[in-house]
Formats: sequence, structure tokens, C-alpha cells
Amino acid sequence: MRNDQRNKNELRPITITSNFIKHPEGSVFIEVGDTKVICNATIEDRVPPFMRGQGKGWITAEYAMLPRATQDRNIRESSRGKVSGRTMEIQRLIGRALRSVVDLENIGERTIWIDCDVIQADGGTRTASITGAYVAMVLAFGKLLETNVLKKMPVIDFLAATSVGILPNGAEILDLNYEEDSKAHVDMNIVMTGSGEFVEIQGTGEEATFSMEQLQTLLSLANEGLMEIFEKQKATIGDLANRIGETVKEGNKK
Amino acid sequence: MRNDQRNKNELRPITITSNFIKHPEGSVFIEVGDTKVICNATIEDRVPPFMRGQGKGWITAEYAMLPRATQDRNIRESSRGKVSGRTMEIQRLIGRALRSVVDLENIGERTIWIDCDVIQADGGTRTASITGAYVAMVLAFGKLLETNVLKKMPVIDFLAATSVGILPNGAEILDLNYEEDSKAHVDMNIVMTGSGEFVEIQGTGEEATFSMEQLQTLLSLANEGLMEIFEKQKATIGDLANRIGETVKEGNKK
Amino acid sequence: MRNDQRNKNELRPITITSNFIKHPEGSVFIEVGDTKVICNATIEDRVPPFMRGQGKGWITAEYAMLPRATQDRNIRESSRGKVSGRTMEIQRLIGRALRSVVDLENIGERTIWIDCDVIQADGGTRTASITGAYVAMVLAFGKLLETNVLKKMPVIDFLAATSVGILPNGAEILDLNYEEDSKAHVDMNIVMTGSGEFVEIQGTGEEATFSMEQLQTLLSLANEGLMEIFEKQKATIGDLANRIGETVKEGNKK
Amino acid sequence: MRNDQRNKNELRPITITSNFIKHPEGSVFIEVGDTKVICNATIEDRVPPFMRGQGKGWITAEYAMLPRATQDRNIRESSRGKVSGRTMEIQRLIGRALRSVVDLENIGERTIWIDCDVIQADGGTRTASITGAYVAMVLAFGKLLETNVLKKMPVIDFLAATSVGILPNGAEILDLNYEEDSKAHVDMNIVMTGSGEFVEIQGTGEEATFSMEQLQTLLSLANEGLMEIFEKQKATIGDLANRIGETVKEGNKK
Amino acid sequence: MRNDQRNKNELRPITITSNFIKHPEGSVFIEVGDTKVICNATIEDRVPPFMRGQGKGWITAEYAMLPRATQDRNIRESSRGKVSGRTMEIQRLIGRALRSVVDLENIGERTIWIDCDVIQADGGTRTASITGAYVAMVLAFGKLLETNVLKKMPVIDFLAATSVGILPNGAEILDLNYEEDSKAHVDMNIVMTGSGEFVEIQGTGEEATFSMEQLQTLLSLANEGLMEIFEKQKATIGDLANRIGETVKEGNKK
Amino acid sequence: MRNDQRNKNELRPITITSNFIKHPEGSVFIEVGDTKVICNATIEDRVPPFMRGQGKGWITAEYAMLPRATQDRNIRESSRGKVSGRTMEIQRLIGRALRSVVDLENIGERTIWIDCDVIQADGGTRTASITGAYVAMVLAFGKLLETNVLKKMPVIDFLAATSVGILPNGAEILDLNYEEDSKAHVDMNIVMTGSGEFVEIQGTGEEATFSMEQLQTLLSLANEGLMEIFEKQKATIGDLANRIGETVKEGNKK
Repeated sequence: MRNDQRNKNELRPITITSNFIKHPEGSVFIEVGDTKVICNATIEDRVPPFMRGQGKGWITAEYAMLPRATQDRNIRESSRGKVSGRTMEIQRLIGRALRSVVDLENIGERTIWIDCDVIQADGGTRTASITGAYVAMVLAFGKLLETNVLKKMPVIDFLAATSVGILPNGAEILDLNYEEDSKAHVDMNIVMTGSGEFVEIQGTGEEATFSMEQLQTLLSLANEGLMEIFEKQKATIGDLANRIGETVKEGNKK
Repeated sequence: MRNDQRNKNELRPITITSNFIKHPEGSVFIEVGDTKVICNATIEDRVPPFMRGQGKGWITAEYAMLPRATQDRNIRESSRGKVSGRTMEIQRLIGRALRSVVDLENIGERTIWIDCDVIQADGGTRTASITGAYVAMVLAFGKLLETNVLKKMPVIDFLAATSVGILPNGAEILDLNYEEDSKAHVDMNIVMTGSGEFVEIQGTGEEATFSMEQLQTLLSLANEGLMEIFEKQKATIGDLANRIGETVKEGNKK
Repeated sequence: MRNDQRNKNELRPITITSNFIKHPEGSVFIEVGDTKVICNATIEDRVPPFMRGQGKGWITAEYAMLPRATQDRNIRESSRGKVSGRTMEIQRLIGRALRSVVDLENIGERTIWIDCDVIQADGGTRTASITGAYVAMVLAFGKLLETNVLKKMPVIDFLAATSVGILPNGAEILDLNYEEDSKAHVDMNIVMTGSGEFVEIQGTGEEATFSMEQLQTLLSLANEGLMEIFEKQKATIGDLANRIGETVKEGNKK
Repeated sequence: MRNDQRNKNELRPITITSNFIKHPEGSVFIEVGDTKVICNATIEDRVPPFMRGQGKGWITAEYAMLPRATQDRNIRESSRGKVSGRTMEIQRLIGRALRSVVDLENIGERTIWIDCDVIQADGGTRTASITGAYVAMVLAFGKLLETNVLKKMPVIDFLAATSVGILPNGAEILDLNYEEDSKAHVDMNIVMTGSGEFVEIQGTGEEATFSMEQLQTLLSLANEGLMEIFEKQKATIGDLANRIGETVKEGNKK
Repeated sequence: MRNDQRNKNELRPITITSNFIKHPEGSVFIEVGDTKVICNATIEDRVPPFMRGQGKGWITAEYAMLPRATQDRNIRESSRGKVSGRTMEIQRLIGRALRSVVDLENIGERTIWIDCDVIQADGGTRTASITGAYVAMVLAFGKLLETNVLKKMPVIDFLAATSVGILPNGAEILDLNYEEDSKAHVDMNIVMTGSGEFVEIQGTGEEATFSMEQLQTLLSLANEGLMEIFEKQKATIGDLANRIGETVKEGNKK
Repeated sequence: MRNDQRNKNELRPITITSNFIKHPEGSVFIEVGDTKVICNATIEDRVPPFMRGQGKGWITAEYAMLPRATQDRNIRESSRGKVSGRTMEIQRLIGRALRSVVDLENIGERTIWIDCDVIQADGGTRTASITGAYVAMVLAFGKLLETNVLKKMPVIDFLAATSVGILPNGAEILDLNYEEDSKAHVDMNIVMTGSGEFVEIQGTGEEATFSMEQLQTLLSLANEGLMEIFEKQKATIGDLANRIGETVKEGNKK
């Protein structure tokens, strides 16, 4: 039995609120259990210097936590004068994941800035950020479709993330909350597309190692949970869901 | 007529939601028109090095904006590696203002950390932060009273802030929104106690100057608006309102 | 009686030495009692990026203290790798104050850099800096008039600053020295134009609050002192004094 | 056929030179094809502040490249004033991996510092760093055994890393060199123990995604390669190889 | 003929004003031609961590220029967030030079902080700083003698510095001003004791090299100039001059 | 007798390995006793902003130590976020020294980046860096000659460096190792050209001073050692040695 009475293969309740904040082109508030993240997407009409003149776009992400998103107060990264290694890892992961389902050739020389700001943390902030950021990004592209800046939806597939792990008693579980995460022997984050392909697998055993069999079980659990999450995303984005996949990017053609 | 149809002496609608986030000792979400700020108060059981051994406490504040709280995206201060002058001014102001109504001798060697995070900005973010932070702080002290860590409420009076200003047409107005603020010739922030004493007056004319008469009008407008705001605060903090003023600090005795 | 035998409404002796250093376009050494500040004005023939192409100029200020300007040695901000919040507040204040009396439309795409370096501090360093910086700036514009780069003096009025405050015994006093400043309950800095209009009012009560009546008394004291200071400035700048007000800036027309 | 004529499941030649530099407790020079890394292990007789008083040790890693380890010169991170996100990710990975095979309870309050400095890069620098760092660490522990500071070898198993990936033509390959890595659609780093358990799986598809079948093939390739690498490590550490596994850590007991 | 009509072996006029600023234990304003430096010495009753418990003292120096000490305005090092290589070289040189004539064993666990702030630069700022800092330091030790904190003057000899160089026409000259310095082929700074021993020789030819004969000529010129400078120092410090050499440090015994 | 049995005028064994690393245009591994430095030269086809449009080139150097190049581990400068004063002094020295023997007018608008990375330190790392960097630079220019990018060798003379010093017992010695260096009373670094002219003399006595006679002895020792080092350099660069001096730079014409 899990500390919040869930079954091993049970997600926490997920709520995705769109148009949360008025200024951004895409704005989403995602709640996964007690983990709460504001995901905003900004469209900027230029790309970073290293990409200029190639006629294609870029997607980049930033991630932060409010100091008191956690049980104890964290020092603000701006006060400390630098971004931690953990933050950098997470923002690189979010950007990479989103780029895998967007046809960058088809968005012009634009940068999509994704900002994920965790206002309350209870485990799984990076996977909730990816799931929410995907929706914010789709909404922002929706604005470009509405105003005919883009003719086709450049997003080629759905995308979401969740975590799986192994508790000290050997139980393989889905969607770890903070308490579970802090005692788990193995922690794995899975990013997957709507068609069931992997985008990213990050599995780590700091206190322990894991076998091939355990890996298989974890991957199945993740797959099951992600299918539910894609339904939540579809419900939130409404008609735009039908336009996902209008374009296909080079590297993903089979 | 103002751009949002308000009268010159009319505040924007104010909502103060308490217990917004689960971890902090005091947590408030304040909305002043379209300006929205999360104010969290953390109690730490020690004081900064320069105050140790004096038997008294300290209150300090940090302020930040989400990158997309504004019309255009701002670079995150953590990415830039330093906090701007504007941010420093604001956080110093918030801390100073709160300290003026707390009997620091009476809270033990504790630091109250105030975090004001603006998630949507439409003018008056620093004054909304002070008004909200005050409530978050009172709630946090409420926890210490409840658990008998403190015997008396160390807050000696109510405290809130608002802005007043002069439009290019010479009109003196209360509670400027972003559009008004960006064209005003004079901008003044007033922090006041529940008993009508000034804590801070910051009046600035960058594009213009102002006369003694204009100053008087502005101060009256501010006074009128602040009396309304104190009522909102009282309604939010409930029974704790009766305990404000149980102690009096040395410097404020008459 | 004050600790240096002054009356409540008495300024410390003020000396303003012009052409103190040979390189800058305008250079002033101002002494206000034991507070001593070098104020240099530099004219740069371009404006910061955000202002290019608008045909108007900019004024910006930097402020610093020698490490041993104070009783105890301060760590150099360059060694610490960052500028303190207090320094930022002061340099923003100086720049803002000077811009309020200059017709920026009339100086071309030039930046006036003001450097205020405190070599000895005894209270009131920011107000002495404004008073001295004003003179350094006028001298620098004098050079541009002399060489016919400018046809008219772009400075529209005199400008100076002083402090007022309330001692623990309730006495309202003018021009606080360090000892007075460190025990005052209320501290207020006033920046005013030669025609008696306010540019900036910054009044703060950290240990206490202040009433409307006290505010009135403080403003009168400041006004009285500033009128004396304008005379000192006039005496220093000589014939240039007659050219102040040759132009009027848009925002200050009545 | 691969660009360097290797078979899909063929490693590049590996050389591990021990005692490369005279000062460190453990020093190794590892060459994997044209990738060359100096791995040094330092033993410090204290732990970081957050671990003091727990009677256990810590292992932490730093990673850097000489500016000209690569085809084009990289700006030195010390000149830039900060460590890149990529560097941070790698050094966190190295530390985490080594900690998974060391019984930290059994090394006393000591920190093992691992420094991996890449002097020539041709793909796979992070996996070569892990493989080399493991040997440097074992040599350092060997010194502590020799001098009877430790009674038992605290390393519980062998540990090495390699990369696998999928080329644009769909070929799954082992141990990617730089040219392969830069065009691969999927890139995966695997850290494994001598007994064939996973410690870390990091699989990423930026330009493409990958299926469960592809994942299986990649994991098998990695497993095959790693078994060869363990033999190289054994050959290098000599008699110390027999002492690996003298202790077992809590989290790894089955 | 030199650009300011001096002979090859002629120093610029030197003025040393003592007790320039009121707070520091030793304060000097030194003018060497148009080069003007404020040199302050601070006595702190503790040493840096790496020296604690050894019963001896330390001397360290910081050097800075006002932004407009030079013809063009320099960016303030505090704004830039770091100290330049040139500044670091100079402050290391000043500290090292002063330590060579002080018996650190005889000053207790104290740190002497030397601050050299150039307010106007015209060549030779580092040598003027050393010459002035020496006097400020002696004055500070004088305070410790006066109050019987020290029984003997810990300064074992006089110390001063000057520059010599070779102009493009081959002329060897003493005490280069800015114009000479900027075109010189060889530039050499010499720090010497009152008894004619070298403390530091830093000779550099960026545009050219120099022979042994030229070196000899330069060293003679420097020696001649320094003897004059020692007389200026003696005149400034008055009676304290008689106490220089009361102690002898270990390393300087012959 | 010296601690490693050398005579006073005896260098440590020197080995210079060319083409050490594959990517750089010039790459050298220099060993001077136990001091080991990788020196790489990179040719970049542009100059820093302050030199653009002058038709001449630039040479700049960076220097670093691996954390465990020394007996105790040093904190990495990239982790610390800034480069130390010592590092800056050394890299400025290396750049300056190399520029003195290169006709910058004759290399086009190119920057030669020199990277000296100390992998093992035993005294004399800066002089070994200069000696090795010179060879790496000549090899890099060799590439430009080979490909006819340059017609003439822009290097006008040989260049090397060594140290000399005075031990506590008064002995003047050549080429100090770490143990000698750490106890020496006087330490002097000499950079010299193949024709016996000085480029740089940096002599320092922190614990003591030195006389004119001692200076002469030290300079002779250095001269003797450097002549041997030039032979090593010649042997390494082979045929390129004959092309040194094909051009003469303005400032070095006699």
C-alpha cells in the first residue's frame, strides 16, 4: 500500500488549466497531486545567434521553483547568483523533449521560450513541467494558426512525461510523490510521444542498481500512465488536438 | 475618465486568498486588479550573523517576477546571474515596511522571510506585495501563537501600501494600473499604518516635478484608499485581527 | 542641542570646489561638513542601446565609497563582485534626479555619466552627491556651450538635495550628520528644484512612524535649507547660472 | 560499415594507464580511441557540511575539457565565470555512478574527489570518464588499504560506462565516436556494474524517437561492450580486483 | 628633451600630504606630477584564516582607479563584477613590497589593509601607490606605538618605488609620465629599500627587448631617483623616521 | 648541495614532445623535471574588437592547472567562478613574452590563442609554459607557411624562460623546483631571446631583499641556462628553426 493509498499503477489526480495568465501566448497551470506548476510559452520573432539565417526555429526552456515551493525554504537562485546543476539538467531536458515533437523547419525563425515555475512541489516537478509545457506550447502555436502566421500545426505528436521507481521493499510504482521519491532506490523519468515511442529515458539508481526485468516492469507502468495523461492533454487543448500531426519532421519519418 | 472607467479616488478590486500554498507558515495570494502576487512567509529559527546574541528577531523580504508576468518576457534574474537595482529597491522597501510594525524584541531570535512572487503584473506590484506580505506575516505569527511559541502577537498595527500619481493632464489619481503608471508624471508609493501614520513616502517625478499643493492632494487620496485596504486585510485574517496591537514597540510609544 | 552645536534648522558648512580633477568634462569636490565627495561628469557621444535613434540623450550615475570613507573599513564592491542594494538605490536616485531638470531632447544622442565617489563619509552622502553632481553636470554642459556643440543650456532649473529627520526625542532637524542619522527615528531625503518644486521625497521610518504634522515640519525645514544650498551652487558655477532655464522641457511646462 | 571500419558491436581500442600523475592518491590516463581523459582521485579527510557527524563518506566529481580538446577551441569555463549545464550534468552523473558501487558507510568521514580532465575529445568523454574514474578511485582506496586506514575494500562491484546509439540509417551501434555521435538520431549512455545490473540509463532522441524493440537492441549492445571493458579494468588494477566486493552496501543486498 | 622639459634623470615634483582623511589609522595623499593617489592604511585586529594561530601579522593591499582618473572613462570594476588582471597584479605587488620591510612577527595577529585609490592618473600610479602606501602604513604603526600597543616600530627600512624606461629613440629615462609610458619600448618598475637593496624589479619589453647594458643604465637611474624619494618620505613622517629599523626581520639579517 | 643533487647552475632534464594532441594547430608537451605542461596553439581568423581593421594580428594566452597538479588539491577556477590574480599575472606574462618576438604586422588579422595547462607542477610552471608555448606557436605558424597562408615566418627570434633564485643560505641557483621555490628568499623569472636580449625580468624578494651583486650573479646563471634551453627548442622544431628571423619587427630593429 502506498502512503497516499494509491495502487502501484495509479496516477495522482491531474488538472490542467489553460489561459492561466493573461500576457503569454500560451499559459497553463498544471496540478499533479500536490505538485503545481505554471507553464508559460512565449513566442519571440528571432532565434539565438548560432541559428540565424537557417530559416528554422528553436525551442528553449527555463525552470525554477519558488523558494517556499518545498517543505524548507530554498535560497533563490537569483540571490545565489547562479543556477544549480539540477535546474540546468531539468531545463535542458524540457527543451530537448519539446523539440523532439516539433517540426522546427516549419515555424520560421522564431524562438519558443518555455517557462516552468513550480509554485508547490510534491515530487515529479520535471515530468509535470514537460506535460504542462507541451500544452502551453500547443496553445501558443494555436495563436499563430489563428492569425495565419503559420498554415500548419508544427507539432507532430502528443508528448508527456511521468516517473516510475522502485521502493526499498522492491515494489515498482508509477508517479512518485515526494515522500516516495525521497526513499526510492531507483527513480526513472520517461518522456513518451502519443504514438508510444520513447523520447527520453533517464533511470538512476543511487542507492541501488536494477535488473533488466525490473526495467521492463517500470517501462510498462510508465506506458500505462502516460496513455491516461495524453487524454487529459487532449481534453484541454480541444479542437487543436485534431491538428497535431499535420506536419511530420524529417527525423521521425519511418 | 480613467482608462478602466474608475473614479480618481477608486481602488481596483482587491482579493486576498489565505493559505494559498501548503508548505509556508503563512501564504497569501493577493490580486489587485490584474496584478497578482503570491506572498509567502517563512519562519526560520535563527537570525543573520550580524544580529546573533541580541535576543531579538529580524524580517527580510525577497521579490521576483515570473519572466512572463509582463507584456514582454523578462530575462530571469537567476539566468542573468544578478538581481537588478529595481528588485533590490523593492525588497529592501518591503522588509523595512514590515519591520516598522513588528516588535522585533518580542519574537525571539527568529527570521521571518517574506517571498513576494509576482505571477501577473499590471502596475502596483510593490504595493500589492506589501499589503499581501503583511497578511502572510500575520498568519505566520498566528501559527506561533497557536502553538504557544509566542504568547503575544508581536504585530503592533495594521500595514498596507498603495500608489498615487499625477497624469499628464494634471489629474491626481489613486492606485495606478500599468498603463497609467507608464505615462504618469509623478508616481508616489505610500506605506501607512492602520492608525494613519506614515511608514514610507516615496514620491518621484522623473518627467516632471510637483508642488506642495499637489503633494497634499496625493497624500489624501492615498489615505482614503488605504483605509479601504485595511478592511480587506481585517476580513482575511479573522480573529487574529483582535490580537494586533497586543504589544507596543519601544520606538512607537508616544 | 545637536551633537555639533547646530540649530535644528542649520546646515553644516558647504564648500564646492570646481575643476577638481583634470580629465573629466565637469569635476567638482563637494564638502558638506565632514562628508566629502568627488563628483565627475563625463560626456559620451552615444546613448545606451535601448535609446538609439530617438535623437535624445541620457543621464546615468554611479556612486561608490572608498573602503575607508567610513569609521570601519568596508569591503570594496569590486572585490565582492557585486554592487550592494544600497549603492544601486543611490545611483538610481542620482540619475533620476538629474534627468528631471535636463531637457534630454536638447542634448543630442549623448550620455552624461555622473560618478560620485565618496572619499569621507559623515552622513548625507547621497544628498551631497546630488548637489555636487548637479554642478559637475552644469560645468560639463558649459564645455559643450563653449565649443558650440550645444546652442542652449539644456538644464532647465537648479537642483539640490538635503536630508531632514526626527530624533528619538521628537526633534525635527535639518541636514543630519552620521551620528544623528544612525539614531534618527525618521529619515527623509528631499530633492528640490530652484523654483521650489519637489523632484523626489523619500521618507522612511524604520524604528517608528510619522504623522502628517511631522511631515509638514520636515518639508519646511528642507525647503529652508535647500534655498541656502542653491546660493552655494550659483556662486560656484558663475556666469553659467544665467543660462539655466534657457530651455524648458515638455513635461515641466505648466 | 562505420566510418572507422568497426563492426556495429565493436568497441574502440581502450588503454588504461595507472599512476599517470605523481601527486594524486589514484591517477589514471584512459584512452578510448582518440578520446583521452586524465582521471585523478583525491582523498580528503572530511565531508561536506551537510554530511558531517554521520560517520559516512562522500564521493563527488568534477569534469572539464582543455579548450583545445575539440576541433574548435572552446572558451575556458573559468574565463566565462561559470560552468555550463552540460558540464554540470556530466559531473553529477559521474559522482552518482561511483557512489552506487561504494559502501559509503565504510570509508569514514572522507570525501573522494574525482577529477576528469579531457585532453582530447572524440566522442564518449563522459563514459570514458566514468570507466577511468572508477579505476582511479579503486587505486586511491588501495592506498588506504595498504596503510591500514581501511580494513576492507569499500567498493562492492565493478563499474563502467559506454554509449550506444542509432544512426540515421537505422543501424544500432556500440561506442560512438564524435562523427557518429553528432549525426546519431538516438544517443544512450549506459552505466553498469560488473554483475550486469544497471546503474544509469540515459537515452535521448532529439531529432527522433525510439521504440521498445530498438531499446532492447541497444541495451544488449551495451551489455556486450561493457563486459569487455570490465576485463580491461581488472587487468589494470591487478590484485586489488580480488578485493572488490569484500563489503556489500545496504541498498544493494538482495 | 622630454615632453615636459625634464632631464632624463629628473623626477616629477612629489608632494605627500599626511592625515588626509579622518577615519583611517594612516592616511596619505600623494601627488607625483599629475598622478594623484589616496593611500589609506587600516589596522584590523585579526588575520586571514590561513594565518590564524601563528602569532604573526599580515599586510594586504587593494588598488583602484576612479572611472574618470584617466582621459577616457573606464568602466567601474564593481559594475563589471570583477577585478581586472592589471588591478590584481598591482595590488599583489603593493602588498608584497610592503611586507618585505615589515617584521610581521612583531605586529601581533593583525592585518594591515592598504587601500590605494587613484583619483587622477598620469603614469606611474603603481609606483606612486607604493611610495604613498609606505607612508600611510608607517603612520598607522605610529598610532600603535603611541598607544603602546606595540613597543617597537616593526618597519625595518624605508621603501619606495619608481619607474624607468627606454623611449623609442633609445633614451633611458626616469619616472615616466603617461605619454612617455604609452610609447616606451621598455618599461621597468623598481621597488627599493632605503639601504639600496632591491625588493622588486619588473622590467618588460613588449614592443622590444633590452640588453644588459641598458639594464644597468636603467637601474642606476632608478637608484638615483629613489634616493630623492626617500628624503620626501622622511620629511613627511617626522620623528617616526628615527624609529624605522628598531627591529630587524629574520630573512633580512645578513 | 641541492635537494635533488643538482649543481647550482644545472637545469632539470627537459623534454619537449611536439604534436602531442591532434586538434590544435600547434601542440607541445613540455616536461621540465617533474613539471609537465600541455601547450596548445590555436589560430583564429579574426582579432579582438579593439584591434579590428588595423591589418595586424594578436597573441593571447591562458594558463590553468589541473586541480591535482599540486600536492594538495586546488579548487577549480571554473567552480570558484573566477580566475585568481596569480593565474592572470601568468597568462598576461606569457602573452606579452610571445608578442615580443613576433612581427604582428606580418600575420594578418589573426589571433594566436595559447593554452598552457599544467598537469603536474613541481616549480617553474610559468617559465616552462613560456618555453613550451613558444614551440607550439612556431609549429602553428609552420602550418600557415606550409599552406602558403603566410610567406615568411613572422617569428623574429627564439624565446625561452627560466627561473633563478637565492636560497636562505645565500646560494644563487638556477631553475628552482617546488621545494626550493617555496623556501627561496629571492625568486626571479627571466624571459630572454635567442640573441641574449631580455624580454622580461621579474625579480621578487618577499622575505628578503637583494643587492646589485646578487642580481648580476642571478642574471648570469639565467643566461647560461637559457642557452641550453634554446638548443632543446631548436632540436624540436627541426627545419622551421632556419626560418626564425626571416622577418624583423619594427621595434626590434637596432
